[in-house]
Amino acid sequence: MSRKPASIEHCPIARVTELLGDHWALMILREAFLGTVHFGQFETHLGIARNILSGRLKRLVDAGLLDRVPCPDDRRVHEYRLSPSGRALHPVLIALAQWSQRWLGDACEALQIVERSSGEAVRPVVVQAADGRTLDLREIAMVPGPDAAPEMAERYRMAMRASKRASSKGAGGDG
Amino acid sequence: MSRKPASIEHCPIARVTELLGDHWALMILREAFLGTVHFGQFETHLGIARNILSGRLKRLVDAGLLDRVPCPDDRRVHEYRLSPSGRALHPVLIALAQWSQRWLGDACEALQIVERSSGEAVRPVVVQAADGRTLDLREIAMVPGPDAAPEMAERYRMAMRASKRASSKGAGGDG
Repeated sequence: MSRKPASIEHCPIARVTELLGDHWALMILREAFLGTVHFGQFETHLGIARNILSGRLKRLVDAGLLDRVPCPDDRRVHEYRLSPSGRALHPVLIALAQWSQRWLGDACEALQIVERSSGEAVRPVVVQAADGRTLDLREIAMVPGPDAAPEMAERYRMAMRASKRASSKGAGGDG
Repeated sequence: MSRKPASIEHCPIARVTELLGDHWALMILREAFLGTVHFGQFETHLGIARNILSGRLKRLVDAGLLDRVPCPDDRRVHEYRLSPSGRALHPVLIALAQWSQRWLGDACEALQIVERSSGEAVRPVVVQAADGRTLDLREIAMVPGPDAAPEMAERYRMAMRASKRASSKGAGGDG
């Protein structure tokens, strides 16, 4: 991680990966989505060493994903609560859980994600066009925006050309 | 990571996190989505050490996310191509990119994710009810499935009760 090529300098996926590309960061967020707020609960539920937990919580607070707030019942104690940006990650977590149950096989029905009021399963998370049609991967393109670094803009254009070639060759089934 | 509490043993998010909760795993997948297939291209684009890249590619191939296939032009060389399960991760990657652009601030318009045919931006990735309504986080529940470990089932039930309490107290705005 010493050299950072220009092509990933301004990439939004690279930036989020710096933050979430860590086993514990994702597991802590999962816990937070399940309602865990206290340091000791995170520790017990995750089986994580206190010093590691402490560091990871601080990073998530610094990044604005968790808010560290005094506990209403005892203001000497703090709680870690999902901030608006943390809560906005729920489609990512749910898409990950659905993917895992679909593709990682075993324990397939350990978890069901449902609409609270009806108990009905939610839909699989998909990418949709502006009019709501579900898009498969071949129908989606990443294009440089106005603020793209020149090298990254070139990468996106190359990727677009490559995937056009692949599509016109009628490349295999979509995932 | 020595102790693994029963509560996370069968959790689908925990399983996917073992696999993807790694800075490089996500960055390699991002590269693959951008059309990178050759070892040397991954190396240059990511600025990653060869031994680390080699290990991470092997893990992704072993996990079935990438296929290692002979290059059509030179069968002594191998390419790393997204498998169906790797391709099926695209809603996760796109949701991450959208979240990053929305919440991590700077370089907000570096990347646009569009429908290839129209050039129109795709919708933000959301979680939808069976009938297609967009659900916010408070309207979603995780409930134990038939294969849930008993401890995990209890966790989901506790989380459900806690979030019900929070909703009935009219907890703040949704993320």
